[in-house]
Amino acid sequence: MSFLLLVFDLLGTFVFALSGATLAVRQRLDLFGVLVLSCAAAVSGGIARDVLIGAQPPAALADWRYLAVAMLAGVATFYWSAVIERLRNPVQLFDAAGLALFAVLGTSKALAFGLSPFAATLLGMMSGIGGGIARDLLVARTPVVLQAELYAVAALLGSGVVALAHVTGLPQYPAMAAGALACFGLRYMAIRHGWHLPVARVPEEP
Amino acid sequence: MSFLLLVFDLLGTFVFALSGATLAVRQRLDLFGVLVLSCAAAVSGGIARDVLIGAQPPAALADWRYLAVAMLAGVATFYWSAVIERLRNPVQLFDAAGLALFAVLGTSKALAFGLSPFAATLLGMMSGIGGGIARDLLVARTPVVLQAELYAVAALLGSGVVALAHVTGLPQYPAMAAGALACFGLRYMAIRHGWHLPVARVPEEP
Amino acid sequence: MSFLLLVFDLLGTFVFALSGATLAVRQRLDLFGVLVLSCAAAVSGGIARDVLIGAQPPAALADWRYLAVAMLAGVATFYWSAVIERLRNPVQLFDAAGLALFAVLGTSKALAFGLSPFAATLLGMMSGIGGGIARDLLVARTPVVLQAELYAVAALLGSGVVALAHVTGLPQYPAMAAGALACFGLRYMAIRHGWHLPVARVPEEP
Repeated sequence: MSFLLLVFDLLGTFVFALSGATLAVRQRLDLFGVLVLSCAAAVSGGIARDVLIGAQPPAALADWRYLAVAMLAGVATFYWSAVIERLRNPVQLFDAAGLALFAVLGTSKALAFGLSPFAATLLGMMSGIGGGIARDLLVARTPVVLQAELYAVAALLGSGVVALAHVTGLPQYPAMAAGALACFGLRYMAIRHGWHLPVARVPEEP
Repeated sequence: MSFLLLVFDLLGTFVFALSGATLAVRQRLDLFGVLVLSCAAAVSGGIARDVLIGAQPPAALADWRYLAVAMLAGVATFYWSAVIERLRNPVQLFDAAGLALFAVLGTSKALAFGLSPFAATLLGMMSGIGGGIARDLLVARTPVVLQAELYAVAALLGSGVVALAHVTGLPQYPAMAAGALACFGLRYMAIRHGWHLPVARVPEEP
Repeated sequence: MSFLLLVFDLLGTFVFALSGATLAVRQRLDLFGVLVLSCAAAVSGGIARDVLIGAQPPAALADWRYLAVAMLAGVATFYWSAVIERLRNPVQLFDAAGLALFAVLGTSKALAFGLSPFAATLLGMMSGIGGGIARDLLVARTPVVLQAELYAVAALLGSGVVALAHVTGLPQYPAMAAGALACFGLRYMAIRHGWHLPVARVPEEP
């Protein structure tokens, strides 16, 4: 089971890194900038979570495989960005899978460090969306995860399922599977059908 | 006394969250984005302070009331943004009160964790202005707290009063009251009279 | 030896603060904004490193001299920005020296806290470039350290030399000197000859 989790975790890291590298290539950053955005997109959410729960050094620094995988994705995107762009639809699916996995893993880790279910849910969501926020801030644009179709809401749903199972004493691994499926399913349907949350009506400027 | 501090703390949280939500609505973010900006504006300063002094998990995550109050402000702004806009002047006053309270509370907490008065003053200021900085960075604009009328200077004054009282052995609660009044008073006068710090003369571009 | 390190460390802090203050003056921030950008540019890298390795409170807060030196640079730039602008070439050299020193010091500190050589190398690089990233994010622009001539690569080289010496059991201080020289030399040559990393060819937008 633990090996499977690691595989999914690294796969999620790879896909998030692809999203960072693709943005960096479009912004005409050099090879190094591409690597930085790859790593930032892949590990910022987990690092923020680990710093907030006091788990230093963060897992993404303590285990070299995370950054190695992220850099691999960066180099691949740098040299074959045309291929990656054509794979955009599969990448979006992998990204939803990475989001689901990071959200439930983040929630579990926060619960294991003794945080309340409420805080753990928020930290799980942050694990999922933090990378996308860091990636976009580094090129000075408003994070798309704050605007995309139910992106953060899906992460919140997955995290919430895991936290709720913890409160009610249900077994952890099935709850994580259910949470990940719920997150992935909601995000997939939102992409497919263009679901989104309402936007407030803005009053006229005087 | 402690209950009164909590009430003020939550009131400050609410008002800072209003400022984040108002900005998010103007930027046409969806309901979730509005909630994220509400929370970011309300708790980022305190979270940064707690991470820097090693008080993990941060109070804003350990106690669910902070984020609940911030989300309440976000939902209220989302549905009644026209009302909130019309209340801009009272909101600015509440914001000054929140700034004053966060600055003196942040300084006290840093002193209690054994930091030097110099560092505690800076951390108190950061508790006050950190939320505004995070809020503005999330929509990719230069933080207004770096430009507004004596905003950070007022926070620095309030924090400095508390730290000075600590150095000289004066009692803590009266010093906090005096610091908060000094911060609020300076900010209020700066808004009313348009006081601001000088801007450097920029040399001509060659 | 330790005194020499402190002198270099404070000199690096001063020069990084100059870069932050110069940017703030050009962006027409007021005196306080200039001081904030000075401090952010000078100490953000070291603070991020200390938070990630769990060394709280960060050295830049625990020792008042760092922020005092940074503020001194900010005030000097505010009142004599024309002079600082004319000194741009010497400042660029000092900046390269500061980068070299921060990178090797950061790597050493991370190794002393028990991080792996791989993680220590990355943390050393972050100590060097983190200030420049924070400085640019605060005025909402893409960090130039992600684009400048071999800037982060030079920091990575210096950090890597120190980590490699640690792995192979070579003495620490000579390794730090060698790493700093390698970083400074590469950055100097890159500025002088306009060396830079390749940029990816972007596919045509469909």
